[in-house]
Amino acid sequence: MPELRRDPVVGRWVIISTERARRPSDFVAPTSPPLGGPCVFCPGQESRTPDEVWCLRPAASVPNGSGWLVRVVPNKFPALRIEGELEPSGEGLYDRMNGLGAHEVVIETPDHDARIERLPVSHLAEVLRAYRDRILDLAKDARLEYVMVFKNQGERAGASMFHAHSQLIATPIVPIMVGEELAGGLQHFRMKRRCIWCDIVRQERQGGGRVVLEREGFIALAPFAPRFPFETWVLPTEHRSAYEETPLDELLALADVLSDTLARMDRTLSVPPYNLVLHSAPLRIGAIDHFHWHLEIIPILTKVAGFEWGTGFFINPTPPEEAARYLREAAPERP
Amino acid sequence: MPELRRDPVVGRWVIISTERARRPSDFVAPTSPPLGGPCVFCPGQESRTPDEVWCLRPAASVPNGSGWLVRVVPNKFPALRIEGELEPSGEGLYDRMNGLGAHEVVIETPDHDARIERLPVSHLAEVLRAYRDRILDLAKDARLEYVMVFKNQGERAGASMFHAHSQLIATPIVPIMVGEELAGGLQHFRMKRRCIWCDIVRQERQGGGRVVLEREGFIALAPFAPRFPFETWVLPTEHRSAYEETPLDELLALADVLSDTLARMDRTLSVPPYNLVLHSAPLRIGAIDHFHWHLEIIPILTKVAGFEWGTGFFINPTPPEEAARYLREAAPERP
Repeated sequence: MPELRRDPVVGRWVIISTERARRPSDFVAPTSPPLGGPCVFCPGQESRTPDEVWCLRPAASVPNGSGWLVRVVPNKFPALRIEGELEPSGEGLYDRMNGLGAHEVVIETPDHDARIERLPVSHLAEVLRAYRDRILDLAKDARLEYVMVFKNQGERAGASMFHAHSQLIATPIVPIMVGEELAGGLQHFRMKRRCIWCDIVRQERQGGGRVVLEREGFIALAPFAPRFPFETWVLPTEHRSAYEETPLDELLALADVLSDTLARMDRTLSVPPYNLVLHSAPLRIGAIDHFHWHLEIIPILTKVAGFEWGTGFFINPTPPEEAARYLREAAPERP
Repeated sequence: MPELRRDPVVGRWVIISTERARRPSDFVAPTSPPLGGPCVFCPGQESRTPDEVWCLRPAASVPNGSGWLVRVVPNKFPALRIEGELEPSGEGLYDRMNGLGAHEVVIETPDHDARIERLPVSHLAEVLRAYRDRILDLAKDARLEYVMVFKNQGERAGASMFHAHSQLIATPIVPIMVGEELAGGLQHFRMKRRCIWCDIVRQERQGGGRVVLEREGFIALAPFAPRFPFETWVLPTEHRSAYEETPLDELLALADVLSDTLARMDRTLSVPPYNLVLHSAPLRIGAIDHFHWHLEIIPILTKVAGFEWGTGFFINPTPPEEAARYLREAAPERP
C-alpha cells in the first residue's frame, strides 16, 4: 500500500509510492517510451489495460473492445489505491496515512500518433467531458477530497507513454497548492467581496498586453507573475468554481480555446513538451464565491534547478507580455 | 533591469529576468555545455570573468591571475542586479519591484574535470568557507534579506557550465520556502520551546532507519517525507541557526560529512546529477531558537511533471528507509 507522509516542518504531504518501489539501478538507465505503435493504449490492445470506467464508443461496440474515441481506465501502476481506509497514525513528530485515492488514465484518442491540439475540436470536447464525468463519479466517494486532472505531453514533460493521454489522481486531502489558492482567494473575497480571478480577467482585458485570445466565454492569458516562460492560463470569463459543473456547450467552447492556444504554442515553440493542469474547487463543496477554476499550461523550456528548489522563487527569462505577443501573432490556420 | 513580480493569489514572487530575455527560438535548440576545457572558469581564463570578489590564492599571486584554489566572481549574466533601489510599485492587483540583489559564482576548483566529492576534504572546506565569507560580506548590504547558496551538478540538474561551481543569489525578500520553514519552526517552538530540527535529529537517532551517517557534530539523514528519491539532508547535530557563524574547524567536519555523503550517492546511483541547497536563517537576525540551518541534497533521478506542478504533492518511488540503507551500505573507501 502506498503511504502519505507529512513533513513536520512545512506540513507538505508526499506520496511514498511503495508499489512502484525503485532500486538505485532502476534510475541509472531510464528507458524512453517507445515511439512506435501499437502500444497498450492502442485499439485492439484493450485487454492489456484494466477495465474501462468511462468510454465514448458506438452503441454497437462492446466494452473493452475496439471502436472507441476516448477511453478512461484505472492506472495499472497507481500512485494511490482505492481500497481501504486512511488509518492516520503518528510516530513522534511524524504523521502518515494509507495512500488512499484513485489514479486513472484518459486515453484521448485511438490514434497512436495524435497530439490533442490536432484533434477536431469536437473530439477534444469529449476528452474534457471525460474529465467532467470522472470528477462527478469520483466525488461520490466521501473518502476523496480532490481530483487533480493533468497531462504530461512529451518525455521531457514526464510522459512515460507516447500515446496521447491525460491522468486523474484523486486525493484524500486538498493539495497544498490548491489550498494556497483557496486561502488567497478567500482573503481577497473577504476584503473586497469579489473573486480575485474575476478581478484578474477584468484587469487583463483593460490592457497590459498579456491576453492571448478571448472567445465564447473563455480567455487565454499569460499571468502577471508566471513561474515559467510561456506559462498560459485558460479561464472561464464568467465566475465558475467547479469545473465539473460546466455545461456541455461550454465544454465545446473551452475545447476551441484550448486547442487554439496549444496550436499557437506548437507554432511559436516548435511543438514543445508541456504540462497541463486543471485547478478546480475541492469536491462536493458546491459553488463558492472565492475560487475560480482554471487550466494552467506550462511548456517545458527551461530546467528547474537548485535555486528554485531551495527558494520557491522562479527565474523566468521571458516577460509574459512578450510571450503573449508571440502567441497572439501565431494565429494558426483554422480548419 | 530584472523585475520581481508577485502573484496576486498565492503571494509567490518570481524573477522576470529581462536581461536574459529569451525569444522562442532560443528554447528550441538548447545548447549543451561543452565538456572539454579550457572554459571561462579555468586557470588562465580569469580575464573572461568579472573581477573576483573572494579568492583563495597564494600570497605571491596576483588578483584575477592564475594560481588560485577557489575563486568567487559576480555572475556575468546575473538574475538580479546589485545597483539601485527596490522602488516597489503597484498596478491594480499587481505588485512589482526592481530586481535588486546579487548573483555570484563560486568556482570550486581550478581542475576543469573535478567533482567536489573527489576533492580533498580540506579543499572542500575552503569552498564552504567561501560560502560563509560571502554571506558575511553580503549581509553588510541592508537592502538584502537573504542569501541562497546552491549548486547544480550536471546538465540534467540545470548546470549551464561543466566546470565545478556553485552559486549565491542574494534577494531583497526572504524566499517563500524559507519563510514556510521559519513559520513551521516558530509554531513548533511556541508550543514546545524546542527547535523542530533538533527534535528531528533526536528522533532519527533513536531509530527508524533513516540516518546515513553521523560524525564530528554533523548528521546526514533521509527525511521522513522526502519529495525526491534519495533526497538527503545534512545538519549540525547541535542547534545552529546561521550557517555563516560556523567556526572554521566545524567547516572541516562538515566538508568531511558532505564529501562522504556525496561519494556514497556517486557509488549508489552511478554518479548522478544533483542539486545542493543551503537553508540558513535570514541575514542579520542573529542566533534564533526556531531555525536550524541545513543542506539539502537532491539527486536528479525522476522528472517533476504535471501532478507535482499542479498540486505541490510529490510522488516518491523510493521509501527513505530504503534510500538510507543503500547509502549506509555504500561506504566509500576513504583516502
